[in-house]
Amino acid sequence: MADCSESACDRFGAVFDLLGKRWTGLILGVLMDGPARFSELVRSVDGLSERMLTDRLNELVTMGLVDRTVLTGPPVGVEYQLTASGKALEPALDELAAWARDHLGAPPGGC
Amino acid sequence: MADCSESACDRFGAVFDLLGKRWTGLILGVLMDGPARFSELVRSVDGLSERMLTDRLNELVTMGLVDRTVLTGPPVGVEYQLTASGKALEPALDELAAWARDHLGAPPGGC
Repeated sequence: MADCSESACDRFGAVFDLLGKRWTGLILGVLMDGPARFSELVRSVDGLSERMLTDRLNELVTMGLVDRTVLTGPPVGVEYQLTASGKALEPALDELAAWARDHLGAPPGGC
Repeated sequence: MADCSESACDRFGAVFDLLGKRWTGLILGVLMDGPARFSELVRSVDGLSERMLTDRLNELVTMGLVDRTVLTGPPVGVEYQLTASGKALEPALDELAAWARDHLGAPPGGC
C-alpha cells in the first residue's frame, strides 16, 4: 500500500471534499436521471439558490464529473449532464445516502 | 427535499471531510478485518506516522465510526474497533474505492 499514487489520492480527496459539500449530492441525484438545464436544476432542488448552484456545477465540471453544453436554441440555454466518470459514482452515492439515512438520520432524498 | 435536516446533513459533510483525508480509507480498511491495536495499525499501513495515525483515529472516534478501548493487559495497550456505524460504511467505501481505481487511477488498496 506504500505505492499509493499521490496525485490520484489527492484527487480522491478533492472529490470527497466536493461530495461532502451541501447540495452536491442532490444535484448529482437529479443529473442521474438525465441531462438537465440550469433552470430545471434550480427548480428541482428546493432551497438551492442560483448562485450556489452555479458554484457547485462549476466545481463538478472542474472535477470531471459533469459536462456543460451551451445550447444555441431556440430556446438558448445551458445543459448539464454527467460524464461517464460522474455516472459511475451512482452506486457509491446510493450506498452513502443509505448509510447517512440509517446512521445519521439524514433525509431519504439525500443531503 | 426541502426538509433536509440541517444537522444530519452537516454531520454527513463532516464524515465526507474525514473520509476524504489521506490515510482514513486505509485505516478503516484494516479495521474492517477486525479490532487492532495501535501498534498493529502502524505496522499495517506503510508510510503512516504515529502522529498522523493518532490524529486520524481521534477524528474517527469523534465521528462515532471507531471505538477506543484501553486494555489493562498484560500487555497493556489501546485497541481500536469499528462501531456498528463504522462497520456499516463498508459497502459504500468498497464502491468508492472501486470508482477511484477505475476513474482516477487510485491504487487497488485505496488511498
